[in-house]
Amino acid sequence: MKDLKRIYNFNPGPATLPLEVLKEAQEEFLNFNDSGMSIIEISHRSKPYEKVHAQTKADVLELMQLGDDYEVLFIQGGASLQFAMIPMNFASAEHKGNYILSGTFATNAYNEAKILGVGEIAASSKETGFHHVPQQDELKINPDAAYLHICNNNTIYGTEFHYIPETNGVPLIADMSSDMLSREWDFKKFDFIYAGVQKNLGPAGVVLVVAKKSLIEKSRETLPTMLRYDTFFKKDSLYNTPPEFCIYMVGKVAKWIKSQGGLKEMARRNSTKAKLLYDEIDNSEGFYRGHADKDSRSFMNVTFRLPSEDLEKKFVAEALEKNLSGVKGHRSVGGMRASIYNAMSIEGVEILAEFMKEFRKKN
Amino acid sequence: MKDLKRIYNFNPGPATLPLEVLKEAQEEFLNFNDSGMSIIEISHRSKPYEKVHAQTKADVLELMQLGDDYEVLFIQGGASLQFAMIPMNFASAEHKGNYILSGTFATNAYNEAKILGVGEIAASSKETGFHHVPQQDELKINPDAAYLHICNNNTIYGTEFHYIPETNGVPLIADMSSDMLSREWDFKKFDFIYAGVQKNLGPAGVVLVVAKKSLIEKSRETLPTMLRYDTFFKKDSLYNTPPEFCIYMVGKVAKWIKSQGGLKEMARRNSTKAKLLYDEIDNSEGFYRGHADKDSRSFMNVTFRLPSEDLEKKFVAEALEKNLSGVKGHRSVGGMRASIYNAMSIEGVEILAEFMKEFRKKN
Repeated sequence: MKDLKRIYNFNPGPATLPLEVLKEAQEEFLNFNDSGMSIIEISHRSKPYEKVHAQTKADVLELMQLGDDYEVLFIQGGASLQFAMIPMNFASAEHKGNYILSGTFATNAYNEAKILGVGEIAASSKETGFHHVPQQDELKINPDAAYLHICNNNTIYGTEFHYIPETNGVPLIADMSSDMLSREWDFKKFDFIYAGVQKNLGPAGVVLVVAKKSLIEKSRETLPTMLRYDTFFKKDSLYNTPPEFCIYMVGKVAKWIKSQGGLKEMARRNSTKAKLLYDEIDNSEGFYRGHADKDSRSFMNVTFRLPSEDLEKKFVAEALEKNLSGVKGHRSVGGMRASIYNAMSIEGVEILAEFMKEFRKKN
Repeated sequence: MKDLKRIYNFNPGPATLPLEVLKEAQEEFLNFNDSGMSIIEISHRSKPYEKVHAQTKADVLELMQLGDDYEVLFIQGGASLQFAMIPMNFASAEHKGNYILSGTFATNAYNEAKILGVGEIAASSKETGFHHVPQQDELKINPDAAYLHICNNNTIYGTEFHYIPETNGVPLIADMSSDMLSREWDFKKFDFIYAGVQKNLGPAGVVLVVAKKSLIEKSRETLPTMLRYDTFFKKDSLYNTPPEFCIYMVGKVAKWIKSQGGLKEMARRNSTKAKLLYDEIDNSEGFYRGHADKDSRSFMNVTFRLPSEDLEKKFVAEALEKNLSGVKGHRSVGGMRASIYNAMSIEGVEILAEFMKEFRKKN
């Protein structure tokens, strides 16, 4: 039998997923649950699918240690559609959405509220190049705000919130697309959490929303059906056909996280991996320059530059020869970005750190 | 090796897909295109994915015999989100959307326009129980309408348009979710076609939009980014991460349709299959009563009732014993529904027709 070719995939998303989860999905792809059908052929009103749907929701809440006052919704359209749905449902001219601008997607979220005339900036690190996430003492939250919106992890800049903003009663909404289920965190302090799943949790095509039922129930009644959160709530995300395959894969990944030791173990691995790379940057005598300020460093996306663009090109090319793929940074920041989500092994990061060391010595 | 268990899947959607397509996807699931990654792990900005994306678009246009004046878009949220996006983008209080109500989803589409205050009914067969699709002489199209919207095939009632409405210049929009790429048709007469793919084309999670560029460009500029069609047009449906796996599977199914002989061959098979079942109904001396009027009979969903509900229950149970699954009708119509999309084999329908004959004789 031919050996399976696998690379170390440092892409920012879609991203690497646990090999054992992929293998399990492959194995049952033609005959799911002995139904004689593929998971992609089976009715969303059937018992076997309903079980997947319910178990996925239960496992997500269990991992996040959230109770009955929270609901899990599965919504299509990516986080970008959430950027619009959130202000459409919850904000108004009197009660604007407040936004912390900490990077590209945080700004995109604000921009959609702005299009709707209901956006307000509570803090921004744009002027200092998005090197850090605004800290508590930088926040100016309007006490009449409908919510405060943060982007938990900034994929492009490689920064991450390491504190939960105190809002004094204003509902807290977080885009966790790029660090969902990557660490323990007091999720009860959030009123509404959402994540496009294609980084830590599964195939692109579904957004996981985990929100307080009491907030969901405030969905604006004048909106079209599919743009109201309470449609998804009342119909258990089955108002129309959900993206079954994506949900099924998220369910498998959630089960995998549980089997590995839950969010505590994910956090341990992710901080171990991040430390390997940040140590390499810090010990490089300026050869590697991290983009993020130390107190805002992301455990998911490690961004750094090299002394010249020529060296950066060489780095990407030579990394690929070592089977290390996807380390090129986003064009708006330049340089390198290693995305080290849950499913990236410590071994893969050790090889990258070793490569960084060798590359530095040779150049 | 264990024999593969497969059933005859007559579900209305998600529905049966070609086994050879499923097998191909399974085989390359861990290592797509020798990339060392699964298709669900690969960047949507990568060359191998871009090739899938472009080829899928090209094959869909080729199958439909449409030229450069049409664009293919991939949008999430199901046809139900399209029900809202269409009036949001194109209709107004002065130029309302006109709707033909021919069934449940046709009505749902109208209802979203109504929520927005821009819906108008051009014809309806509701009062006669949706047994037929309104014919040309029943239509009252407002000459100032932004568009005329039809639902090409009514999955629940088992009726289908067998003519293309003449609109006298009003743009024609069609929901083809349940008969997309199932027959030859003069698609150039349509300005905007859309289809949730989970019936004839792939896994739930993407809507295929095939529309005139000149109409797409009229998208309303004041809308949030993800609700504007021109966002998808300008960014080639890559403004944010698309549902790669769904698009990849649609691409494989489109390629399969081409390899089988295109829409001409699909139409031949589908009419052959439909005839087998309608003949059985017509020759049953009233034992089976079709829901649809003969001139509106669907080639995709064959709906019929039995003399009693007890017999209907018995029919479903005994069919399942013969490996014939999913023949129970929708609760709003009752009785039976056999969905016989592209990927349902003639053999499967022959077995169902034979079973219908035997069941009738015994009961």
